[in-house]
Parts: sequence; structure tokens; C-alpha cells
Amino acid sequence: MRSFEVKNRTSVDDIKSLRLITAIKTPYLPDGRFDLEAYDALVNMQIVDGAEGVIVGGTTGEGQLMSWDEHIMLIGHTVNCFGGSIKVIGNTGSNSTWEAIHATEQGFAVGMHAALHINPYYGKTSLEGLVAHFESVLPMGPTIIYNVPSRTGQDIPPGVIHTVAQSANLAGVKECVGNDRIKQYTDNRIVAWSGNDDECHNARWDYGATGVISVTSNLIPGLMRQLLFKGKNPSLNAKIMPLVNWLFEEPNPIGLNTALAQLGVVRPVFRLPYVPLPLAKRVEFVNIVKEIGRENFVGEKDVKVLDDDDFILVGRY
Amino acid sequence: MRSFEVKNRTSVDDIKSLRLITAIKTPYLPDGRFDLEAYDALVNMQIVDGAEGVIVGGTTGEGQLMSWDEHIMLIGHTVNCFGGSIKVIGNTGSNSTWEAIHATEQGFAVGMHAALHINPYYGKTSLEGLVAHFESVLPMGPTIIYNVPSRTGQDIPPGVIHTVAQSANLAGVKECVGNDRIKQYTDNRIVAWSGNDDECHNARWDYGATGVISVTSNLIPGLMRQLLFKGKNPSLNAKIMPLVNWLFEEPNPIGLNTALAQLGVVRPVFRLPYVPLPLAKRVEFVNIVKEIGRENFVGEKDVKVLDDDDFILVGRY
Amino acid sequence: MRSFEVKNRTSVDDIKSLRLITAIKTPYLPDGRFDLEAYDALVNMQIVDGAEGVIVGGTTGEGQLMSWDEHIMLIGHTVNCFGGSIKVIGNTGSNSTWEAIHATEQGFAVGMHAALHINPYYGKTSLEGLVAHFESVLPMGPTIIYNVPSRTGQDIPPGVIHTVAQSANLAGVKECVGNDRIKQYTDNRIVAWSGNDDECHNARWDYGATGVISVTSNLIPGLMRQLLFKGKNPSLNAKIMPLVNWLFEEPNPIGLNTALAQLGVVRPVFRLPYVPLPLAKRVEFVNIVKEIGRENFVGEKDVKVLDDDDFILVGRY
Amino acid sequence: MRSFEVKNRTSVDDIKSLRLITAIKTPYLPDGRFDLEAYDALVNMQIVDGAEGVIVGGTTGEGQLMSWDEHIMLIGHTVNCFGGSIKVIGNTGSNSTWEAIHATEQGFAVGMHAALHINPYYGKTSLEGLVAHFESVLPMGPTIIYNVPSRTGQDIPPGVIHTVAQSANLAGVKECVGNDRIKQYTDNRIVAWSGNDDECHNARWDYGATGVISVTSNLIPGLMRQLLFKGKNPSLNAKIMPLVNWLFEEPNPIGLNTALAQLGVVRPVFRLPYVPLPLAKRVEFVNIVKEIGRENFVGEKDVKVLDDDDFILVGRY
Repeated sequence: MRSFEVKNRTSVDDIKSLRLITAIKTPYLPDGRFDLEAYDALVNMQIVDGAEGVIVGGTTGEGQLMSWDEHIMLIGHTVNCFGGSIKVIGNTGSNSTWEAIHATEQGFAVGMHAALHINPYYGKTSLEGLVAHFESVLPMGPTIIYNVPSRTGQDIPPGVIHTVAQSANLAGVKECVGNDRIKQYTDNRIVAWSGNDDECHNARWDYGATGVISVTSNLIPGLMRQLLFKGKNPSLNAKIMPLVNWLFEEPNPIGLNTALAQLGVVRPVFRLPYVPLPLAKRVEFVNIVKEIGRENFVGEKDVKVLDDDDFILVGRY
Repeated sequence: MRSFEVKNRTSVDDIKSLRLITAIKTPYLPDGRFDLEAYDALVNMQIVDGAEGVIVGGTTGEGQLMSWDEHIMLIGHTVNCFGGSIKVIGNTGSNSTWEAIHATEQGFAVGMHAALHINPYYGKTSLEGLVAHFESVLPMGPTIIYNVPSRTGQDIPPGVIHTVAQSANLAGVKECVGNDRIKQYTDNRIVAWSGNDDECHNARWDYGATGVISVTSNLIPGLMRQLLFKGKNPSLNAKIMPLVNWLFEEPNPIGLNTALAQLGVVRPVFRLPYVPLPLAKRVEFVNIVKEIGRENFVGEKDVKVLDDDDFILVGRY
Repeated sequence: MRSFEVKNRTSVDDIKSLRLITAIKTPYLPDGRFDLEAYDALVNMQIVDGAEGVIVGGTTGEGQLMSWDEHIMLIGHTVNCFGGSIKVIGNTGSNSTWEAIHATEQGFAVGMHAALHINPYYGKTSLEGLVAHFESVLPMGPTIIYNVPSRTGQDIPPGVIHTVAQSANLAGVKECVGNDRIKQYTDNRIVAWSGNDDECHNARWDYGATGVISVTSNLIPGLMRQLLFKGKNPSLNAKIMPLVNWLFEEPNPIGLNTALAQLGVVRPVFRLPYVPLPLAKRVEFVNIVKEIGRENFVGEKDVKVLDDDDFILVGRY
Repeated sequence: MRSFEVKNRTSVDDIKSLRLITAIKTPYLPDGRFDLEAYDALVNMQIVDGAEGVIVGGTTGEGQLMSWDEHIMLIGHTVNCFGGSIKVIGNTGSNSTWEAIHATEQGFAVGMHAALHINPYYGKTSLEGLVAHFESVLPMGPTIIYNVPSRTGQDIPPGVIHTVAQSANLAGVKECVGNDRIKQYTDNRIVAWSGNDDECHNARWDYGATGVISVTSNLIPGLMRQLLFKGKNPSLNAKIMPLVNWLFEEPNPIGLNTALAQLGVVRPVFRLPYVPLPLAKRVEFVNIVKEIGRENFVGEKDVKVLDDDDFILVGRY
């Protein structure tokens, strides 16, 4: 593209060097549409506190609950408003190769800096099919491949990654299988990010990971920055662990959605099938915030325990 | 609806009594669009050989690779052409509650007799979320819930089924976890179908299952009819087992797609991310056909080993 | 298609013989979704009172305010519920050739008996472009072409019709330019329907038109049946003329929507940009009903003047 | 939005001052998808030669032949690549109020500087309906209303414009009815642009128009810049008139598409229902280019007469 705007000059190497990437939450208005004002505030907090990239419409951002036009719009919006300050990585992956192709073309056309690609979850395919799937989208631009068998029902074995790594566009792997797998990649000069907040400190400092694609950094971006940039810090890691454990007791982003609502930075609106954590857990969160320190969390309002009636669950939107 | 057409009078009990339901294959033209002529022939063979229902756009039918308008169109088409002769069960489930609601409304509006609903795969949710998801769609009409943790990454525990079984619209469960789970349901008067062709004979005759939602019946509907209707028949069950095992060596419907193409009843066109089985497996299939008897399989052409070049893989459609 | 269901055997000649076709109203729920129960009642009244066909999602049915998936769903629904009793003609035309192709394929796939095709309104094209547009869809099945320059900004000249009439699928023309144009067609053995209710009696009995595609028949199907089937009847024609004139004082279907709401057969819900007629006109309608006789109109409730507050205008749906 | 990027600070006054706005052509690849590389080159030529704004996906840009996701993507793409150098006005109008609302929200979300809104063509509505339609979208951002009765079948009378001008977001009117209507607006301090290239010189210098929204400027942006900025110039106006007349002999953008292909700046690909001008007209164009001077036209290749076989007409895309 003959664009003269600086933000569009992103290379694969730029992506490879990102240490703290936040899988950003998508907030909603009471009728279920995107709350772009709240979203912009969330992204802005990430920039201010040192995140270097955002995943737009990941599983955390509930891309699976968006129509594709919403999804591409949100990518374009993020690039337009913040693309000069933070790398915008669109989750344009799909279990349908055609959808992945179409969304990835559109995502790069509206300026995303990189694509996140998942293997075909639910439908699954053979190893040859995995390779064909990824090779359909890799030529389009910088790409991170995402492996999370607990969601997809199918591990992406290292052999597949090594095959597709022949494309210069492969920036690396977001790996959730664990730090041994990460080491296997980094030993072979394949960039890896931990997809598990509880393991990311060790992944970074002991297993060669470049950094993390994080859920927790939605809440405490400054502490996560410190954890990833300031050298080994087991005591900080231990300090945030109760929060991390709390966040993942139910499938993500149930915990995150509940937390951000109680911090007053997003409206307490859930798109089904997500529902808030129960009261006992909501009380627990407030205690965790106090323990870690309110000042380390995003937003400026007092954290509070919301009532069941405060939440709005939206089925049609 | 004030319809006077007979086929629209389907009750939940009608659905509960179906013993042989085929998760029907969707065949394609070389440009990736549906091959409706081949599809109609496939459905017709099912009717002639005794299947009582079809799942339209299931994982076997590659609903995950369809746009929703294609998907609803295929349901409407099937009802319109065959709804008087076979029960049409639309796979209008989704991991997005909103998509499931919208598709299920549309599916019933175009006349489907029942809906198949999956739990939210990939995105996953809490148990409360599962119940909220299913309760969003159950009021619309007869419903089968589908449990396949190896695809979804999350088991639907019996407690959830018992909760949603309070709806009179729950016809039953398509269960892939195994025959002990099936027995747990049938002992409690919840209708269950086996979702595993290799276990369905025993599920039916020893564990109380009503029948099967089958992939294999795409190929040998008459034998599957016999297996499900004519009493215990371990020798027949053993006879078909090599075929069943062959079919599921790679994620379904890779084997089925390859088989139907070699039987000459569909064009050898694959929508990515599915790719055909390799040559050695294709040779093996021809031998299996000969072993079981060509006359037991759908179609009338000679079975043949296709070359790699015979297959068309479609990414954009 | 290998369908054994009788209703699917429609020939072009069946379509050519239809004398009374109603451009059926689409009624809405308060949230703007289709009110299928009310719709089914409307179609049923048409069948009972002698209409032989319905146009689904025409300009009267506000196809221009539907998403294509809603539109195809409504066609499939109508076929499924009433396709054995009335011919279902889907307005699958568009000013985009690609949309017309896609919608027409889908419409025939869900069983519509014929397609209605408009020339590319708003975008317009050359005469060669018109021919190319119609020839893209004519091979798919029985087709009526619709000429209404006051909406499209472009007359379809007879030369274009004569060119495309080489396709055996052209059933005829819905012509709004006037009865001289109709005679020009019928003299040349091209079937024509009047698209103007005020001219249809004469079109039928003096200019060779087969019949009418009517808006007014939504309200008084029995009288329209009489007008088209029982021979010349200028006094009946004069009797209904005040109603016809009232209906078209504002762009259709504003008058029709207002009328059906006041007759109590649809909810007073308008999708924008349509808004109800003002109070004075609403009073006038009640008087017209009394003049012609309530018993000649659809529905059984008393006709009443609705208040401004009774109407719901929906922008988002 | 909390964006810190300069290009997002556009006011209604910025829009009101634009004198030369080009209704930019959308070029295609042979398979009918957007040719973004050629598009970027076209936009870049506009910037270099002095156009101040582009209409994306107008009737000239064939918005009517785009899916909404393509359309919004193209707006987002244009903003992302060129939004710092030229104002991006998205044609997010529709004859469906809901579509106009949805597209306009998305267009502003991806950064467009203003919206172009048409009255509901084809479907039409009452004057109250027109006002309701425009008032549904005006709150979202700077807006130009477009009046072209020869396409819409319905004039927007000045009374409607005066009513909606109460919104501070109304930037002005793109008026095709003629210069007397323009004067009526500009005398009342309502900003107007001529929508007719043959009248724009006089509109600008004698009738108070701010400028033009031009088709011809796709071809000769520099001369159009001169015509609109350098004072009265009847001889320049006369010089370009043969080109303008040639361009509009068939419905726009048929002439423009043909011309740009012969200038070698876009591939000769047409989305139906558009087809190229016939050979005689194509020869005529080459002569007009020579008369006006090749150097005044976009592109650097020799202008040439294309053969019928050089053109690709695409129905499915």
C-alpha cells in the first residue's frame, strides 16, 4: 500500500520483539453493542502502563461472540485511534479456512500490524490440513500462531510449526501447553510467548520466551510490565498469583469480565454464554485487590462488590 | 404457524423415537458452492435405505465451514424437498448464544423438525453459562443436545442435562463420552443417542440408547438400519468395524469425504481445512468396500482409488 | 432436485396463468423482528379469499429493509407452510447482480416457485448491462421482470424484454408504466401483469393483461378476486377506487401498513424509514372501510383510528 | 474517542470548506475482489493533484455492489493509509434506515471524517419519513446529504433540508437538481456542492456552491483543481466539457470505468451490472484524451483502445 503514514511500517521483527501483549477485553453497552468509549479508555490505560501490543477480539476479547463486520471494525478502530502508540494484533483466525482468509485480508487492509491464528478448533483437521490452513493466511503479513489444546481439542505439534516457520511472516507462537514446549521452540530460534499468566514469569526468564500474551495485564498492566521487563522477580510473581488463580477458576474471560466491572472501568454487561462469577467469588476479588493494592489496578474508582441485579446478560444484540 | 401442510406437525415424541439419524455429508461443486443435486441424491439414498432423520450442517456436514445464510438455506431446502419423508434436524448450535438463537429461530421458521445444540466450544463457559445458553434456545422447539468433549474442550456434565431437561422440548442427548454415560441418562428416562459409531450397537442393545447419530450411515445406511433395528447382531457389528475404524483415523469428516468421493457419489472437492486421506489410506478403503460388499454401500459406480490430482481443495468460496 | 413432494413441480406455465398475486405485507414484532404468526394469518387470508400467488419481500413487503438471510428465510418459511396452496414468488432481485444471483439461487433452493427481478435501481446501467443482469438470473427458474421507473429511475424498454424473452424461463412482466405498454407486450404474446391497482381492471379486461400484482388485495382479497375473475365490472372498480387512491397518496407501503394496523391484523410497528400516515388520513381510512363494508376487508376486529402513541417506529432491529 | 492521533480531529467546519471532493472509483482484481494496490495509487494521485476529499463507496465507487463488510473495510483502509492527507467521506447511506445507522456507526468508528447520506431510493418514503431517516444518523458525526432524484426516484425538497439543518452535524448538501436549487441553499447559508460536473464551474463561481463532488476529477484532478480554485475560467470549462459529456452518456460509472481502464490505471474488470462502453465510444475517449492532453490525465501509460476481449465481467465475487 502506498501509505505515507508512519504507523503502517511494521515488520515481522517489530512483532517478534514485543514482550507484553494484552488480550484486551471488549466492553459492552447495555444493549450488547460495543462500548467504544470504555474500550478506548482500556486501550489507553494499556499504553500508559507499558503494554506494547493488544490482541483485538481474542478469546479474552470475545471475538467468538462478534460478527465479522464488528470484529474487523474493532480492529480498524483500534488502529485508527491507537495504531501509532501500540501494536494492533487482530485475532482473525477461524476454524473455517475461508473465514480466516477473508478476515485476515480485511484486517491487514484496515491496518492491523499482525494476525493471530488459531488451528481449526471444534471441526479439527489432519496435520496436512493444519499446514494447509496456516499456509493459506501466512503470506498476508506478520503472524502469530496460537496453540491452546484445552480450547481447541487438538494440539498443534512442533512439527507443524517448524514446517510453517519457513514463511518469513511467522513471528512466533503463543503457546499454552507449558514451558517445556516453549523451550523446545526457543532452543530452535522460534519466538514464543507464554499464553499462561501463571507461567509467564518463568517462561520469560528461564525458558527463553520473548514475553506473554496476557489476560491479567488487563487488570494490572504496570505490574505485568515490571514482571516482564525488570528481571527475575519471584516475589512479585508470588504476589500476583492469587489474582491469576482467581481469574482462571472459570473459563476466561468470566473472571476478567467480573473483575473489570467491579473496578468500575466497564459496564457490568455480559454477552451470553458468559455470566458473572457468583457473589462469594466477587467478594474474594475485592479482597485480592486490597491485598495487591488498588493503585496497581486499572481505573480510579473504588473497587466494589456488585449485586446480582447489577449485571445485565444479553442474548440478542 | 397456521400451516396446513402435514410435514409440519412434528412433536418432541416423534424426535425421541428416531433410531437411525445420519449426520449427512454436504457435497460441493468445484468452486466450493453446495452441489445440491448430489446432496439430494445422498438424502434420497438415506430415505430409501431406512434412515429416519438427518442432521443438516453438523460437524460431519461441515456446518462450521458454512455461512449462516448457506446453512439455513440448506435446512430449508432439505425440509422443502424431503421433509415429508425424513426428519430434518438442523445443527443450529453455536458457541455464540446470539448466533444459536438467531439460527434456531430461522431454522424452525423454515420448517426444521428439531435443533441440534452444542455447548459453547472453544470459548467455553461456566456451568451456569451452559444452562443459560441452552435455556436461550430450548423454548423454540424440539432439541437434541450434543456432547463431544474431544471437540469442544469441555464436557457437559449430567447435572446440566438434568437441569435443562425440565423443558418439555428436550428430546434427548447425543452423547460421545461413552456407554456408561448413556446408561446414566437412560436409567433416568432421558433419551440418548450414541455419537460413536463403534459403540452404537452396544449402546442400543445393552445401554438403553434409542439409537445413533451416525457418520458411517452415510456410506452403508442399510447395514446401519439392520444393526439398529433387527436386534443384537455382534457379527454384523464386527463386520463393519474395520470401516468404522478407518473412518475415524483422522478427524471426521476427512475419511467420509474421501470415501464418498471414491464411491463416485460426490465430487472430490474439499473445503479447507479438510484435505483428503493419503493414497495408502485410499487404497485401504477400496479393500474395505470389497470386504463388506460394494452392494452395501451407497451409489452404483465402481469404487476406485482416486489420484492426488483428482482432488480439488477450495479456500475461497 | 430429486424431490418427491408435489408442491415443487411448478412450471413457467403455472406462473403465467396466475391472475391475482398479492405483494404481501411483512408484519413486525415490537422489536422489529418478523411477526411470523401474523404473517401466516395474512397469507392464510389470501389463500382463503382466492389469491393465487404471493410476492414475498417485494417493495410492499419491504424486502429493501431485510437482511438477505431474513429474506430467504421468509421465502423458505412461506413455501414450507403454504407452498402447496399458493404460488410463492420471491423478490430476489437486487441492483447488485451478485446479490441477485446469490439470492435467487437460495430462493429456488428453498423452494420458491418463481423469482421477481427488478432492473438495477439507483445504480442503474446501460441497456447492455440490463440484459447481462437479467441473463445472469434467468437460467435459474421461472422469472417475472418488474418495471417501475418511478422507483428505479430507469424504464426497462420493451426491446430489453424482447431480448430476454428468448429464455423459456421468462414468465412475463410486472409493468407499472401503464396499459398501453401492457398492450404492447400482450399483443406480442408476452405475459403482463399490471403493477398499478387503479389500472388493473382495465388492464385485465381491455389490454390483455393476465392479471395484477396487487397491494390492495392485502386488504380486500375477495373483491380483487371478483374484479379479476368475474368479467368486466366497472362499478366494483369504481367502488374500490377511493381505497386505492388513499393507499397511494404516500409511497407504498405507508398506506398499507397504516391500514392493516387499524384493521387489527398486524401490530402497529413500522421499520424506518416508513412512518404511519397522519391522523387525518387515518380517520379517512375508517370511513372508507365503512363505505366499502368491513366484511370485505381482512380480519375480524373492528376497524379503529389509532393514536400517534400506538405506533412503534423501529430503527435498530 | 480518546485518540491522540491528529487525523481524528475533524470538525464539521473542516468538511464545509472542502472544494474538490472526488467520488473515487473502486478498482477490481480479475476475481472481482478489490484491487487495493490500484486503489491506493488512485487515491494517491488525487492527493498529489489537489483533491481535498474522497467519497468512498459512492455510486461512482459502486458502493451498491459491495457487501457492507467490504464497504466499511474500504473506508477503514482509506483512513488508515491516507487519512492524514485527505478527508475520507464514507457513503454509509442506504435506503434501509437500519443499514444506514449500522454502517454509519461503523464508518465513524473506523475513522471516517464525514458520512454521505442518500434519501431512501427505490423504497422511498414520506417527508416525515425522510426527516426521521436523516435524524437517525445525523447525531453520529459530520454529514453531507445527497440529492439525486434521477437515481432515487424522489426529490429531497428544501424543506426537509432546512428541518434537518438544525443539527450542527449537517455539513451541507450534494445537489444534483441544478444550480437554481443550489442558490436557494447558499442564499440561506446552507453549504452546497454541485453533484453535476457539467455545472460545477458555474455553481462555484455564480451560485455560491462551495465546490463539487466530482466524477471527472478521477481522470483530470489537476484541471478540476484549477477549475474550482483559480477563479472563473470559462475556457477551461469549455475545454473539459467534451470529456464530461462523454462520461455521462451512459449511467455513471460506466464511462469512468472504461476510461480508467484505457488509461492503464485500473484493470479492465467490471462488476455486473456494469459493462464497458462499446468500441466506438472507446475510440472517442482516446481522441478526447489527445485533445485535452494526456499529461492532464491520471497515470503515465499511453492511453489505448481496449478490445472487447480485454474486459472481464464478474457476476460472482
